[in-house]
Amino acid sequence: MSELDEIREKKPLVHCITNYVTVNDVANAILAFGGSPIMADDIAEVSSMTSISNALLLNIGTLNERTIASMKLAGITANSKGVPVILDPVGAGSSTFRNGTVLTLLSDIHFSIIKGNLSELSFLAGLGANTRGVDSCESDQQNNTTEVAKNVAKKYQTTVVLTGYEDIVTDGHRVAKITNGVSLMNQVTGTGCMLGGLLGVSLGAGLDTFHLAVLTVSAMGIAGEMAYEQTSMKGTGSFHISLIDFISQMNDSILNERSKIVYETEY
Amino acid sequence: MSELDEIREKKPLVHCITNYVTVNDVANAILAFGGSPIMADDIAEVSSMTSISNALLLNIGTLNERTIASMKLAGITANSKGVPVILDPVGAGSSTFRNGTVLTLLSDIHFSIIKGNLSELSFLAGLGANTRGVDSCESDQQNNTTEVAKNVAKKYQTTVVLTGYEDIVTDGHRVAKITNGVSLMNQVTGTGCMLGGLLGVSLGAGLDTFHLAVLTVSAMGIAGEMAYEQTSMKGTGSFHISLIDFISQMNDSILNERSKIVYETEY
Amino acid sequence: MSELDEIREKKPLVHCITNYVTVNDVANAILAFGGSPIMADDIAEVSSMTSISNALLLNIGTLNERTIASMKLAGITANSKGVPVILDPVGAGSSTFRNGTVLTLLSDIHFSIIKGNLSELSFLAGLGANTRGVDSCESDQQNNTTEVAKNVAKKYQTTVVLTGYEDIVTDGHRVAKITNGVSLMNQVTGTGCMLGGLLGVSLGAGLDTFHLAVLTVSAMGIAGEMAYEQTSMKGTGSFHISLIDFISQMNDSILNERSKIVYETEY
Repeated sequence: MSELDEIREKKPLVHCITNYVTVNDVANAILAFGGSPIMADDIAEVSSMTSISNALLLNIGTLNERTIASMKLAGITANSKGVPVILDPVGAGSSTFRNGTVLTLLSDIHFSIIKGNLSELSFLAGLGANTRGVDSCESDQQNNTTEVAKNVAKKYQTTVVLTGYEDIVTDGHRVAKITNGVSLMNQVTGTGCMLGGLLGVSLGAGLDTFHLAVLTVSAMGIAGEMAYEQTSMKGTGSFHISLIDFISQMNDSILNERSKIVYETEY
Repeated sequence: MSELDEIREKKPLVHCITNYVTVNDVANAILAFGGSPIMADDIAEVSSMTSISNALLLNIGTLNERTIASMKLAGITANSKGVPVILDPVGAGSSTFRNGTVLTLLSDIHFSIIKGNLSELSFLAGLGANTRGVDSCESDQQNNTTEVAKNVAKKYQTTVVLTGYEDIVTDGHRVAKITNGVSLMNQVTGTGCMLGGLLGVSLGAGLDTFHLAVLTVSAMGIAGEMAYEQTSMKGTGSFHISLIDFISQMNDSILNERSKIVYETEY
Repeated sequence: MSELDEIREKKPLVHCITNYVTVNDVANAILAFGGSPIMADDIAEVSSMTSISNALLLNIGTLNERTIASMKLAGITANSKGVPVILDPVGAGSSTFRNGTVLTLLSDIHFSIIKGNLSELSFLAGLGANTRGVDSCESDQQNNTTEVAKNVAKKYQTTVVLTGYEDIVTDGHRVAKITNGVSLMNQVTGTGCMLGGLLGVSLGAGLDTFHLAVLTVSAMGIAGEMAYEQTSMKGTGSFHISLIDFISQMNDSILNERSKIVYETEY
């Protein structure tokens, strides 16, 4: 693999309509991975911004009526311009409002990648999700995670990234399981949102969505492992900063050495 | 005391409607203290989110018409469901809009804890507050801080946390004075907001509001002291990160060893 | 020069209506430089907040209809009260909406400082800007940067800060070129926004806008150099934190020793 260095050379512009909780981390993660972030959410300019971008990220973490309309318009614009779109359905399953919004976005926009945890993706699969706030619930663990991911991928003709103890990437046929990462990443808000940003960077630079998603998920997990090795004795503040440090240092050499990916291609 | 470890086991879900300046720190502080944050402010979903939460935090730092309506509905829902509510009346006393909002929230919602500085609480007490932006004014120092805190506690039948050189916790009768903390905490934005988040965590896990408020205020101050000891030579950026580090490392053993609390029970 | 220490003594209050991406960094940078930030953007209170402030910062990074109206009212209030106003026209040139907003603000409000990159200021100068998101484009480099800055300064009777490889400060007649800073500052979101905040602090404390702008730009660049020296081996997360550390440690002694300023007064 030599993709990461190529991505940095291309410096993809990623238009993000995202939540105000983790937006700074998303922007810095995009920069650290070699992209250029632009956050703009007013409906009067989202089409302009999407049109000049290499990828669009829609994250519903703190959705509201105003930004939902902007997300729809940006997504439709992206589809018409051939700009890949990533959906991070944060908290899907946890409120009627959130559920309705996600389903509307999915009916109006084609997404190149949908990234979520088991609860969020179980909701999208039409299974009984039991989201507790923005975290995945243990009760959902009984669903077969791979089946949920493949179900969503086929249903929405997309590539699914299901994050958890083991991360799964699937386009409905090919399946990759990535076991990089550390559980401490759950103790910092926004690591999932940052991964959404990184997926925007890699997708904005290349064409093979499944392959790029696999390496990006692995790269994020490796950054987490390296941050853990360096800061776990200090605490979650230092871990948070170190995570961005290692995203900024990530390259193909580190990725080749540390990635833990198992492919289970099924047709 | 063995409460902190118990809080971490319960992992309370804290619904926050808070300002966009410090929201990331509030979320990370909640995680570091053992809770789980959920930020959602659209009126279409705040009732759902509050209903599944263990505590609700309302912080008016960057209030606007849209989120005020959401705060009211969330607070009323919380009261009806028995979910404890914390008010952080940031900047109360500094604008007619802010003052009117705080008084409306107080008339519609019962708060388990009101946390503010001397200026903000002087306004709530009906005294002549002289807030200068979001900081407390020296001119207010002439009010007897304990009397102001007790006045607000009795008036609103709540527990008051008055932050300052010396922190005061009172339910109107019992009074605790906590002298943990360092003044450098004022040089990082959001340390007060983070304390609001921590109060949400502890209140979401237990029943004795006064006692939990005292230990939480002490824990936050101790984290500040430890961060100061480790980073004061570096600067406020490192202090900020170290503060979150030490919140994430806080436990009953550290609390027992370092807490400086004086009780002045008065009836 | 002994201005920085004087600024810290005055602790100017800076009212910011700014974007939600970098607002936390702007607030912490203002505190680190010796000021006190207040973020308030509801139209019902911006006049009150501006009236008690020593400077007003308008940053259009994530502008929307609601906050544009607030920016106008705050700016007009500031002009009537003699409070200096700083404009950070983030992304000017990149969308019709953003362009129209900037021109409206410029017609309604007099700014003491306009700070932008070459693309943004080329748009203000009426030249063909080619903004790519929020970054400056190489195609714009062919415009003579000093001429662009002087053009905008004269056109709007203001002091211009043009940030780039070499920073330029001009009031249309006097020109200063500052070569402090490192390119890594572009890999952290918000370093430009933070500079806007620092300009608010210094302008809120003194009278000689041109002189204060020069020393503030130099101080920010020096903080970047010192952060680079300390953290460049670690990554952009650590650099980000160290940058705020060195802003908090900045003083006249460091400034005198490290500033690289060339004056090219032309009449």
